[in-house]
Amino acid sequence: MSITLRDVWKANKRIESIIERTPLLYSEPLSLKTGNHVYLKLENYQPTGAFKLRGAANKILSLSDEEKTKGVATFSTGNHGIAVSYVAKQLGINAVVCISNRVPGEKVNRLKRLGAEVVIVGENQDDAEARCYQLEKEEGFSVIKPFDDPYVIAGQGTIGLEIMEQCPEADEVIIPLSGGGLLAGIGYTLKTMVPEMKIQGVSMEQSAVMHESLKHGAPVVMKETPTLADSLLGGIGPDNEYTFTLTKNYLDESVLVSEEMIKKGMVFMMEYHKMIVEGAAAVGVSHVLKQSDRRGKNIVLVISGNNVDHQAICDLI
Amino acid sequence: MSITLRDVWKANKRIESIIERTPLLYSEPLSLKTGNHVYLKLENYQPTGAFKLRGAANKILSLSDEEKTKGVATFSTGNHGIAVSYVAKQLGINAVVCISNRVPGEKVNRLKRLGAEVVIVGENQDDAEARCYQLEKEEGFSVIKPFDDPYVIAGQGTIGLEIMEQCPEADEVIIPLSGGGLLAGIGYTLKTMVPEMKIQGVSMEQSAVMHESLKHGAPVVMKETPTLADSLLGGIGPDNEYTFTLTKNYLDESVLVSEEMIKKGMVFMMEYHKMIVEGAAAVGVSHVLKQSDRRGKNIVLVISGNNVDHQAICDLI
Repeated sequence: MSITLRDVWKANKRIESIIERTPLLYSEPLSLKTGNHVYLKLENYQPTGAFKLRGAANKILSLSDEEKTKGVATFSTGNHGIAVSYVAKQLGINAVVCISNRVPGEKVNRLKRLGAEVVIVGENQDDAEARCYQLEKEEGFSVIKPFDDPYVIAGQGTIGLEIMEQCPEADEVIIPLSGGGLLAGIGYTLKTMVPEMKIQGVSMEQSAVMHESLKHGAPVVMKETPTLADSLLGGIGPDNEYTFTLTKNYLDESVLVSEEMIKKGMVFMMEYHKMIVEGAAAVGVSHVLKQSDRRGKNIVLVISGNNVDHQAICDLI
Repeated sequence: MSITLRDVWKANKRIESIIERTPLLYSEPLSLKTGNHVYLKLENYQPTGAFKLRGAANKILSLSDEEKTKGVATFSTGNHGIAVSYVAKQLGINAVVCISNRVPGEKVNRLKRLGAEVVIVGENQDDAEARCYQLEKEEGFSVIKPFDDPYVIAGQGTIGLEIMEQCPEADEVIIPLSGGGLLAGIGYTLKTMVPEMKIQGVSMEQSAVMHESLKHGAPVVMKETPTLADSLLGGIGPDNEYTFTLTKNYLDESVLVSEEMIKKGMVFMMEYHKMIVEGAAAVGVSHVLKQSDRRGKNIVLVISGNNVDHQAICDLI
C-alpha cells in the first residue's frame, strides 16, 4: 500500500495554513433536475483556482530544508504548475515549471506572475517531463510530480476527509479523472473509511488515457486531442507507480462525456450557479445531467478548478 | 458491528452546533518528565465540563420529533446527567435525571440549575437505572443511556476524529475507562483508521468493573468503593450490548492506578497546567507519571472532565 489514512490526516494538518477548506454547496437546480441530492465540492475556490494546491503543498512542505533551498521543478498542463509556483512563493523558494506548447496562454502568464521560471518545451506533457528530470540532474531541483506521488495523492485525499465532515451521508462521489491523483486520493480515503461509498471517475471521450489503461490492464500511451477539458490531458506514464493501481482498486465506474456534454456542464454552472469553471471541472456536472435515474441518492461532484481562458468562455456563449 | 466510521462522521456533523471542538495542548512538563511527546485532549473545556456532552447530543439529536416532545430521562453518576440536561435545555425539551445517593452534592445542584427534574434513588447506578426505565414505561420518556448505546459511542468517537485532525502523528491514546463508551468510541474510530494506534484504558484500582469484566471474559458486578475518580464508578450492566465487546476488541492494554497516584495526577494538572480536573480525568496523567520509559512516542491523554466538588480540591491541597 502506497498511502495510509494516517498519511492523509498528516497532509490535512500540514497544508492547513496554505489551502482553503472549500465549501460543499447543495445544488438545488441539479438536485431538482436529477432527482438526487447533489452537492458541489468547490475546489475552484482554492486560492490557485484548483485542487492541485493540496497535493503540491503537501509534497513541498514535506521536503527537507536542504531540498527546499535548492528549489523545486515541475511539468504540468497548468494547474499543478500554478500550485507549485504558488506554494514556492508562499515559502520563499525557487520554482521552475516545464510545460508543453499546448498549454493555454492565460495559464502561462499566470505562472510568470507567480514568480516561477517557465520553460516551454515540446508537444506534450512527456516532453516537458523529460526536461524537468534533466534540470533535477543538472541543477539539483526537487521534481514535484503532478499526480504519481504518495504525498500528492495524500494531499488530494484531504478532500475526502472534508466530504465526510460536510456530508457524512454521501452515497456517491463523482471525480474528474486524468492522471488519477485526485481520484486515487479521494477514492482511497473514502472507501477505506466507508467501503460502500461509490466512486465514479469521469473523463472526456477523446484521449481518455486512464480509462483506456484500466480497460487494457496496464498504462497505455495515446495521442493528445484538443478538448474543452484540457486539464485532463496528459499521459499517466508507462512507469506509473501509484495512481494506476490505486485508481484500479478504488474506482467503481469509469465513464466518458462528449465535448458537447462538457459544454453543457460548463454552461449549466454559469447559468445556475454563476460560476465559471474549466471543462475538466464540469465533467461531473455533464455526467449527472445525462442521467434520469432519480434515485434520491446523496451525490458529491468534485468541481476541480476554474482556470479557463477567457476566450474559451466567450466562444462558449 | 454496532457502529461504522460513517456513523462517527454523521455524529461529528450532527453535534457541531452544541459541542466544542476542544483544543489539543502539548504538555511541556509531562513531555520533559516522561521523555515522550505528551498531548492533552481537553474535554474539560466542553460547555458542561466533560466529554459526555458529545454522546448525549448525538443521541438526543437523533430522536424523532415525537420522541423529543415526550422528553428524555437518564441515570448517571453526574456528567452524563449534566450533558443530557444541557442538551435538553438547548433544544427546549423536558429532562428527568435519576441518580444514586453517592453522587456529589455539587453535581446535583448543577443538574437542578440546568432545569432538569432530579430523582435521587438507591445506593448505586443500577437502582437509578431501574427507576429510569420505570419512568420510560409509565410516562413515555426516551431513556438516554450513559454509555451502552451506538449513538452515544459514535458521539464520543468524534474525539478520535479530532485527535487525528490535531495530531496525525499520535502513537498512543490513553483513555479513562469505566462503562467503556469513551474508550469504545475513540478506540473504534482510531484503530479502524490507523490499525497500529495503541489504545490504553485506565481505571482506578478499586471497583474497576470493566477491567475485571475483561479479565473474566464477561460483565461482572462489583460493590462500589469511594474513590477520587467517582465519575468512573458504576457497573457496565449484565446485559451489556456494545461497550464490553467494543472495548475488548479495540483496547490494547487495561491498567490501574491507585488513589495516591490519582491524587498526584490531579495535583500535577493544577500545579503545571493550572487546571482543576476531576479524578476520573486525571487517571491518564497519573499513569504516565508512573512511567519512566522515555520512548519519544506521541501520546495523547484524554482529559475527560472537570466536575469535582470544591471541597475535594480543598482536601487535596
